[in-house]
Amino acid sequence: MNNILIIGAGRSSTALIKYVLERAKENNWFVTVADSKPEYAEEKVGNHPNGRPAWLDAMKVNDRREMIGRADVVVSLLPAYLHMEVAYDCIKLKKHLITASYVSKDMYRLSNEFRDRELIFMGEMGLDPGIDHMSAMKHIEDIKDRGGKITAFRSYTGGLIAPESDDNPWHYKITWNPRNVVLAGQGTAQFMEDGKFKYIPYNRLFQEYHTVNVPGMGKFDAYANRDSLLYREVYGLSGIPNILRGTLRTQGFCDAWNALVQVGLTDASFPIVDSGNITYHELMEAYTSSKSIAGSVKERVAQMLEEEPDSPVMEKLEWLGLFRKKKIKLPNATPAMILENLLVEKWKMKPRDKDMIVMHHEFEYELDRQKKLMTSTMVMHGENEIDTAMTKSVGLPLGIFVKLVMQGKITSSGVHIPVKKEIYEPVLQELEEYGVVFHNQEKDL
Amino acid sequence: MNNILIIGAGRSSTALIKYVLERAKENNWFVTVADSKPEYAEEKVGNHPNGRPAWLDAMKVNDRREMIGRADVVVSLLPAYLHMEVAYDCIKLKKHLITASYVSKDMYRLSNEFRDRELIFMGEMGLDPGIDHMSAMKHIEDIKDRGGKITAFRSYTGGLIAPESDDNPWHYKITWNPRNVVLAGQGTAQFMEDGKFKYIPYNRLFQEYHTVNVPGMGKFDAYANRDSLLYREVYGLSGIPNILRGTLRTQGFCDAWNALVQVGLTDASFPIVDSGNITYHELMEAYTSSKSIAGSVKERVAQMLEEEPDSPVMEKLEWLGLFRKKKIKLPNATPAMILENLLVEKWKMKPRDKDMIVMHHEFEYELDRQKKLMTSTMVMHGENEIDTAMTKSVGLPLGIFVKLVMQGKITSSGVHIPVKKEIYEPVLQELEEYGVVFHNQEKDL
Repeated sequence: MNNILIIGAGRSSTALIKYVLERAKENNWFVTVADSKPEYAEEKVGNHPNGRPAWLDAMKVNDRREMIGRADVVVSLLPAYLHMEVAYDCIKLKKHLITASYVSKDMYRLSNEFRDRELIFMGEMGLDPGIDHMSAMKHIEDIKDRGGKITAFRSYTGGLIAPESDDNPWHYKITWNPRNVVLAGQGTAQFMEDGKFKYIPYNRLFQEYHTVNVPGMGKFDAYANRDSLLYREVYGLSGIPNILRGTLRTQGFCDAWNALVQVGLTDASFPIVDSGNITYHELMEAYTSSKSIAGSVKERVAQMLEEEPDSPVMEKLEWLGLFRKKKIKLPNATPAMILENLLVEKWKMKPRDKDMIVMHHEFEYELDRQKKLMTSTMVMHGENEIDTAMTKSVGLPLGIFVKLVMQGKITSSGVHIPVKKEIYEPVLQELEEYGVVFHNQEKDL
Repeated sequence: MNNILIIGAGRSSTALIKYVLERAKENNWFVTVADSKPEYAEEKVGNHPNGRPAWLDAMKVNDRREMIGRADVVVSLLPAYLHMEVAYDCIKLKKHLITASYVSKDMYRLSNEFRDRELIFMGEMGLDPGIDHMSAMKHIEDIKDRGGKITAFRSYTGGLIAPESDDNPWHYKITWNPRNVVLAGQGTAQFMEDGKFKYIPYNRLFQEYHTVNVPGMGKFDAYANRDSLLYREVYGLSGIPNILRGTLRTQGFCDAWNALVQVGLTDASFPIVDSGNITYHELMEAYTSSKSIAGSVKERVAQMLEEEPDSPVMEKLEWLGLFRKKKIKLPNATPAMILENLLVEKWKMKPRDKDMIVMHHEFEYELDRQKKLMTSTMVMHGENEIDTAMTKSVGLPLGIFVKLVMQGKITSSGVHIPVKKEIYEPVLQELEEYGVVFHNQEKDL
């Protein structure tokens, strides 16, 4: 085994590609980096003798299969909806496959196909999902080994901007896929509280956030992240009365994002008429209630949102330029595409900006008739616009796992996420060298 | 041509089947009524010598094609997502096809295929869409013929319960597909007001209703219905500054339905965990905010909705039994399926209940420098639970159009909705015999 194929050379691939190339010579690896924009691949591979940039339109079945056929291990950074296609190819061509995306039910159904061919599919091997699973499992198994009974598990992650680079009223910049930033939270969040199932539909998700106090970092908004219930069994926590995975944002973010949701700007389901020619002001006017009384468009939006025209929420909308008479210039665009296009510009990192990852777990458990709370917190800063904490924390787990597979150190086969000791222990250990370090606190309750 | 195939013998097929069978002998028609539940077809065909009930699972391609192959004209009352399949069959087998459903963009793309084979596909040939198009076009063309310039067109339809049969606090009973009752309005409503595009996303649709005064009937809630913009060109009203299609409900309905939307009960995207075993009370509790303070589930829901616990909205939710500790007993059910199942029981018509259709058009136009408002209103009562105004007003336009096609009186081919005089004039004329009569009022503005 000496051929690695990485499909996708976008924003989150930098650290992965760097990690793999740095170890390529000593391990006699050849690394192909493929992207539909070959210049992305070229830039990231540089002149490395063991690297090869390649052009690949992943929708073209024959090209994709030919490239996968020449690899031993495939890492897919493609959009999630393409993973099934790549998985079928890998089964047919007998290749291991690794991604950082959520594993779908359809993918789990391929588990026997992978297992029968002694192949591993490893999904959710990035930051969140990824490092969160691994660091949580380490503590869950440790508490259990000590005889503790876990009664609550809450895990929060935020990809944020470091305080020293925070210079806008949203206190947020884009460090990951901007389309996913806009669509985050769509669907219904599911979790468990005091032994009861809880559901929050999208239209209330950014209203019903709560406040989380992260040691050393202060308070953050936290909203429920997708379906936390799925992880009860996976984590060995069946029957646990409290489980929640959440997303962290700087305080004030959720109220303002909720305003965008309520207006309708995160909707990806239909194109705005004549979106190439209208202004942001006209777009906002089109969303104002036909019942509302006189006033400027901004005042009417404020009234619709039950905000004062100069409230912090309205200030954030205004800062985005949503009330400006500037043309959108995006033909055939959905509201979500228009918003994404605007945020990519307004929330762009400057070259020297530093991003920041905050991950925070809370475990409540009983040991020797004493209720205890343990927290485990990781904060990581990026270096600049390119070498972000986001690309490191998504890419390094992938890179380390690629290495383990290439070195024959992984014996599991089938469809997995990183919750087994065999996997999380060596990955977490090596991640520490890169600054992924958790600080734990424990107290009696 | 003497073979008619009607696919679907459910709730809305009664009047159509009756109409076609009554004319079958004199025209030498043979009428096959097919349904996946053959007893529905048997019940509606009875012992009629020209009728034949048949069992058909419309998903089974070969069975469906064989049956279509023996027909000359096909009427599909299947769920909308199956119409494309049936349309491909009809093109291949050279059959005319008629439905009461909205015509999708994909269907319009088949226009040349139908036209090349001298076939007609007629869609939106029911009540709303259907009678609304035809009655509106009659006035639109009349006003234009008189030299008038139309500046506003608003068209409202409601499938309601007649006042004498109205005995529940929602003032509503189910007279059409209950699944569509629950999912009504999902997506973003689009219309035009004072020359400006207007968008209302689903999460605000039942908040931003307005009040419509229908002559002789009083005031109704009206919410915007789907994409009104599509009809500007179709109606010959390109450039009109005001166009809106809306749905009528008894006053108070929209506020209460909005509560169901805000809670999350109209969501069809995920299954509620253990829905076979939990109670309605537990379901509502699962939707209450984890932030909300003490109180009963009803009080916490009221707080979430910013309602007083004894408000008219809360009274309607309580009347549905949403706070009862009664088991739902529907395994693997989405919130929308649970709500549908509940409404089918609570909003069931009694045998002698009468339903009521209200359709109301408003045309503002200028003629000889005078601004005028013309209204055209149709109210129709059903006879009982079976012979509803709904089944008549959906089925009779279909039946009349089937007759016209069978008699060779329709020369158009391709994909159509009923906006051409050739079509709407004879259909409207015959509909009058069945009580579909519009009353017009006109005044200067």
